[in-house]
Amino acid sequence: MKIFYSVTSPFARKCLVSAHELGLRERLELVPAAAHPVNRDPALVAINPLGKIPALITDEGDVLIDSCVICEYLNTLGDGHLVAPSGAARWRVLADQALADGILDAAVLARYETAVRPENLRWDAWIRGQLDKVTCALAELERRAGELAGRIDIGTIAIGCALGYLDFRYAWMSWRDQHPATAAWYAEFAQRESMATTRPG
Amino acid sequence: MKIFYSVTSPFARKCLVSAHELGLRERLELVPAAAHPVNRDPALVAINPLGKIPALITDEGDVLIDSCVICEYLNTLGDGHLVAPSGAARWRVLADQALADGILDAAVLARYETAVRPENLRWDAWIRGQLDKVTCALAELERRAGELAGRIDIGTIAIGCALGYLDFRYAWMSWRDQHPATAAWYAEFAQRESMATTRPG
Repeated sequence: MKIFYSVTSPFARKCLVSAHELGLRERLELVPAAAHPVNRDPALVAINPLGKIPALITDEGDVLIDSCVICEYLNTLGDGHLVAPSGAARWRVLADQALADGILDAAVLARYETAVRPENLRWDAWIRGQLDKVTCALAELERRAGELAGRIDIGTIAIGCALGYLDFRYAWMSWRDQHPATAAWYAEFAQRESMATTRPG
Repeated sequence: MKIFYSVTSPFARKCLVSAHELGLRERLELVPAAAHPVNRDPALVAINPLGKIPALITDEGDVLIDSCVICEYLNTLGDGHLVAPSGAARWRVLADQALADGILDAAVLARYETAVRPENLRWDAWIRGQLDKVTCALAELERRAGELAGRIDIGTIAIGCALGYLDFRYAWMSWRDQHPATAAWYAEFAQRESMATTRPG
């Protein structure tokens, strides 16, 4: 399989961490891609018309896009332990992933505002709105941090990648200060080989 | 169950159409919500810290967010015919949904740029980049339009809601002109009761 990725994309990282945890890392050929919301990469667009990463080309030649879809696909290629097949455990894991991905969507949009958009066109209220999503979601995570211990699934992987992205792009936020239970969980989770070998930057 | 929604949200529409197709529409209590990326609604944030719709409260009191997660949950409450449980059919449906949701993500971001952001802070290159995602994804859909006939699943529902959103917010785009096969498919699909009763506007 080939995966189009970049080392700084937290959504691509979710897939690489999942592959690692499933014992599939060696089957993934990594293809660096320059996804950008304005300067679109024709080589990537030819694979994924949305021009986003991650994008996966399966051994059968099919293209899968969207990190959630790719992670679920990898899960079925592996032993399936990252997503429960049904029942309350499945919804718990998928809900956690959705919350973490929502943190990432907002954090990435706020970053585009400062890192991509010309300075004279930036809108502070937009950045505040996006970062308030991050803040509220972190508060929710902190309430649920006790449920995360010992879990290795697509929910905790997504949460780990979201927190890693905040460290990478929003170090000034010092998210640990207000979220000690989440920080304690992450300190251990981030040491997993799957996480340590995919740290951005 | 309660679903937080608005009649103009294409992601909420996916859930309502899915519920209708699954025979679950009467079990959904509709709660209007004012999701906004800048002026966040505290009542909605209390349910979903991301402040986004759709958000579902299950009969057990659990909160599910993200239209893909909600639709899959509804699918398991119903007879399951909207998402194949495994195999190539599952990946086909989820890939179609991801492409359609990508159209919507881009179209909604481009709309925020013109409908929400102050005029003096708008960036044409951003709008062009987002709408190029829509254009390229529509071209891909047109190539695959022959595969859509007769299918009622979360992939075709998402595609239908994406095309409906383009009609609603981007009528000037006249997407049918360049995509006759997609237009022919949609002309029939849009007449389904599930689609006709959830048309925005």
